[in-house]
Amino acid sequence: MEFAEYLPVWDKLTSEQQQRIAEVVEYRKVKKGTHIHDSSTECLGLVMVRTGQLRAYILSEDGREITISRLFEYDVSLLSASCVMPDMQFNVMIEAEKDTEFWSIPACLFKNLVDESLAVSAFANSLISGNFSELMWLMEQIMWKSFDKRLAAFLLEEVSIEGTPTLKVTHEKIAGHMGTAREVVTRMLRYFQSEGMVKLTRGTIEIADEKKLKALCDA
Amino acid sequence: MEFAEYLPVWDKLTSEQQQRIAEVVEYRKVKKGTHIHDSSTECLGLVMVRTGQLRAYILSEDGREITISRLFEYDVSLLSASCVMPDMQFNVMIEAEKDTEFWSIPACLFKNLVDESLAVSAFANSLISGNFSELMWLMEQIMWKSFDKRLAAFLLEEVSIEGTPTLKVTHEKIAGHMGTAREVVTRMLRYFQSEGMVKLTRGTIEIADEKKLKALCDA
Repeated sequence: MEFAEYLPVWDKLTSEQQQRIAEVVEYRKVKKGTHIHDSSTECLGLVMVRTGQLRAYILSEDGREITISRLFEYDVSLLSASCVMPDMQFNVMIEAEKDTEFWSIPACLFKNLVDESLAVSAFANSLISGNFSELMWLMEQIMWKSFDKRLAAFLLEEVSIEGTPTLKVTHEKIAGHMGTAREVVTRMLRYFQSEGMVKLTRGTIEIADEKKLKALCDA
Repeated sequence: MEFAEYLPVWDKLTSEQQQRIAEVVEYRKVKKGTHIHDSSTECLGLVMVRTGQLRAYILSEDGREITISRLFEYDVSLLSASCVMPDMQFNVMIEAEKDTEFWSIPACLFKNLVDESLAVSAFANSLISGNFSELMWLMEQIMWKSFDKRLAAFLLEEVSIEGTPTLKVTHEKIAGHMGTAREVVTRMLRYFQSEGMVKLTRGTIEIADEKKLKALCDA
């Protein structure tokens, strides 16, 4: 029952509740690029990431995307279980950004546990509050920060996630994270290049001057 | 104990819990324009609106605002109690848009009730989920909808709230709701006027063609 370690509220459950989870918890291993949750599929439930990286995003009618949350090892998310949360009405997609292993607890079981256990209810509360806080931060970024700063922040975050200054990411992908068009990303990256902050080659973006990028970000 | 009617979870509390609330619940009557909560004041707690209208908004460093939620009669909000919610880190201001009467339950008592009562925890859950959903909707609007549609939707909402097609609202105020500059609002309203959708006079905006405005909004 390795997954127990990935569910922070596990120790506060009764053994009967633990057993109910153990009986239905699902382990999955998916390839990079796999869509594990969207509005057309059934509600996935609570997701616990073992390894890899997931991203949750929303999609406009004309196909533009914006990333609202990213999940790493040990992260737990309810965004894939919005169907069971009260007063939640929106569509979130989740896809694997890297090869990913995760567990999921079916939405209906999780809902039952939320209804019967104060500990699980408090846990759900903290997950949603966390998402709300993240979304608030994102909205502040979008509303008040200029695109150059947001892009600089995104590149620095990627460097920290990937652990390398040479990012293998397309302009299209970045546009999908940031809710804008590819052309807008390309234009800004070329400007960054002209300022010596990045070096662009086919398929990669190399961070050439991290300090300058940070300064732009904090300005 | 009239406030009990305004607290949906009241009947699920023990009489001891009810009494603890009754002892500290605060009734206030504030004038239009009063700031009842901001980052510099103490955490207000759970707010229950008796009459009037409140709005919750966030503020950028350079003073731009955007409305994230509006509260009417019988609405209950936790946005004024973010200090006690887990993993909530952001600053929300709340001001009265009209003369308003409301009750507040101190944040620390509400936190205790959330910790000890499954019913209150579930209630808090649904409030936060509702806020999250609202914020998600707002973000979709900002990301994907053009400003003319957002402004049309805002005007129609105001007409429905005020119950009159003649709105007494400044361009400045609208800009504060929508997270933009006054000039942007003025320019778009003039365009609406040239299209026969509104009539502008000093201090008022009269909706001249609601159908056309609706069509724009739904287009």
